[in-house]
Amino acid sequence: MKEDGRPITARDLAQHLNVSQSAVSRAFTPGSRIAADTRELILSTARELGYRPNRIARSLITNSSHIIGLAVSYLDNQFYPLVIERLSRTLQAKGFHVLLFTVDKHGQADPLIEDVLQYRVDALVLTSTMMSSKLAAQCKQYGVPVILFNRTTEAPDISSVTGENLIGGAAIAEYLTACGYSRLGFLAGLEDSSTSRSRERAFTGWLIDYGYSAPLRAVGDYDYAKAGEAAKTLMSSETPPEAIFCANDHMALAAMDTIRHRLGLRIPEDVAIVGFDDVPAARWPSYGLTTFSQPVDGMVDAVASMIEDGISVEGSEPRHIKVKGELLIRKSSPRPNLAKLGGELPRNWRIEDD
Amino acid sequence: MKEDGRPITARDLAQHLNVSQSAVSRAFTPGSRIAADTRELILSTARELGYRPNRIARSLITNSSHIIGLAVSYLDNQFYPLVIERLSRTLQAKGFHVLLFTVDKHGQADPLIEDVLQYRVDALVLTSTMMSSKLAAQCKQYGVPVILFNRTTEAPDISSVTGENLIGGAAIAEYLTACGYSRLGFLAGLEDSSTSRSRERAFTGWLIDYGYSAPLRAVGDYDYAKAGEAAKTLMSSETPPEAIFCANDHMALAAMDTIRHRLGLRIPEDVAIVGFDDVPAARWPSYGLTTFSQPVDGMVDAVASMIEDGISVEGSEPRHIKVKGELLIRKSSPRPNLAKLGGELPRNWRIEDD
Repeated sequence: MKEDGRPITARDLAQHLNVSQSAVSRAFTPGSRIAADTRELILSTARELGYRPNRIARSLITNSSHIIGLAVSYLDNQFYPLVIERLSRTLQAKGFHVLLFTVDKHGQADPLIEDVLQYRVDALVLTSTMMSSKLAAQCKQYGVPVILFNRTTEAPDISSVTGENLIGGAAIAEYLTACGYSRLGFLAGLEDSSTSRSRERAFTGWLIDYGYSAPLRAVGDYDYAKAGEAAKTLMSSETPPEAIFCANDHMALAAMDTIRHRLGLRIPEDVAIVGFDDVPAARWPSYGLTTFSQPVDGMVDAVASMIEDGISVEGSEPRHIKVKGELLIRKSSPRPNLAKLGGELPRNWRIEDD
Repeated sequence: MKEDGRPITARDLAQHLNVSQSAVSRAFTPGSRIAADTRELILSTARELGYRPNRIARSLITNSSHIIGLAVSYLDNQFYPLVIERLSRTLQAKGFHVLLFTVDKHGQADPLIEDVLQYRVDALVLTSTMMSSKLAAQCKQYGVPVILFNRTTEAPDISSVTGENLIGGAAIAEYLTACGYSRLGFLAGLEDSSTSRSRERAFTGWLIDYGYSAPLRAVGDYDYAKAGEAAKTLMSSETPPEAIFCANDHMALAAMDTIRHRLGLRIPEDVAIVGFDDVPAARWPSYGLTTFSQPVDGMVDAVASMIEDGISVEGSEPRHIKVKGELLIRKSSPRPNLAKLGGELPRNWRIEDD
């Protein structure tokens, strides 16, 4: 505060130090060009005088809040905490911070548009959640750029970053049949999730195309307890599957726990299990889960570069980035018969020995 | 925009609809008193005219941004994603949102004070990280209220929310000796973490007080790979421990994986394992980990009520809330000998059968 009770402004500070207002601004902007001793002088004097820089006020002028909204619904799947940690770290290095919007897993999942608009976010990233066409239209109307992360939508003009859901789903079908299995199961995530639907479509499509039966099917809703129940249902059928593809690793871990500890069956001898994501626990020796990977770092970098490029709602084309993954074969399923694969592993498959 | 190019203001909107500016404000404030049809009319007209409410601008007047800064360093431990999800959900229901600051796990862990100040956060919550006395002093100087979550600090005037680190550490010592063990191990987290230090002090203190030897000790840094190595070190000593208390569940899961799958030993027959937190995976049947719980919901509610009460740096007393936990006895360790416990389980112990 100054003596007259008004807060100290950047101009007051600049006058006091006999430097430009622009120098004051640069001193408070991580990564900007300014001599180290000048910055130190400005920061220490700012502290003495009680000057608080104000990005919030600046956002009214620059129209950039340096806030990225991130809408998430559930974090029990290990994939999403990794996404949050890396996305926050990566954006922070570029001068942005992540503001969280938590939405319901079921039902009305949109964050309130009024709420998003009030914080003047520079972009809204949606993950582990769907986006309604209503919210998409509202964001467009108000000029809020949107990026879907690990999801896609029917709306053609919304940018997205995903893994290789179709390539992965088909690779898992090819792999399990190359292990000699023909009676397969699919454990679905939330029925309205584009991710689960794409993986299933590719998996089932490949099987049908190559003359196999469609897989038995149960729904786990991306939930640990429900996925365990769904695995039990599949294994209780008259002709239980020889192998189950679970739409993500989180459900695959639940299926493995139920199959081993509740049903007393062996993996992979009695039934093989495959997941999708490659979360850290998939590599833990209690599981050793075969999975198709989604590289978090690559996916996060894609989001960050879209934000840096200043994705905009109007004008620029929406971008759809797919980050390459690999089929990582571990001990929850057998080695494939190479003869069925033309003598060698496809280039995006890898055997990961313990 | 209006015809003259200026953005539509709340006053313009109020005049257009012949309502008060206060009604416009209430329409955009979740939970405020306003008739549903009036709110709907205001929101739909706002959309038509292109009015964007502006919490950011309002924060300059009210001095409240409705942003709570949350500094985290790592999210691989399942405890912290739960904290983020529940804290975000709980604060959102009260009109706040969480802005993330990601800090390094080792070394200089403070978020940049300039960065925190720029967003005018209403409070800063620090978790899975330490707070330097420098940052504490800066926050005090600039009037930013701070809450430590699952950490404490030497500085007496910083509010904190923790579990029962001392009660839990002592309970685990009493429990393991009541199982008949006398050669114990302790697997520490980050050496400068108050949480790990408190748990160890209570554990070792109890043992010494009751005439037992101090535990063998190794350091896992709260890291899955390092904790596995530390467990190996403990088990390779000349007289390996009969039971190991790991400073959190995340490291206990790593110790169990290494002990079973790398060393080929049985749990609890060859060595018993106990953790701290009660993360979801502790209940998964692959682990069935005995642990002292830290109830996330209770801890998050404590933070939210501090924020709602308007914790302030000056004036009000700092608060130190400890949320009660329980010793949950599962299959990674045996049942205690009740005779050694005066005939019955202490009231905060519970046997959780599968």
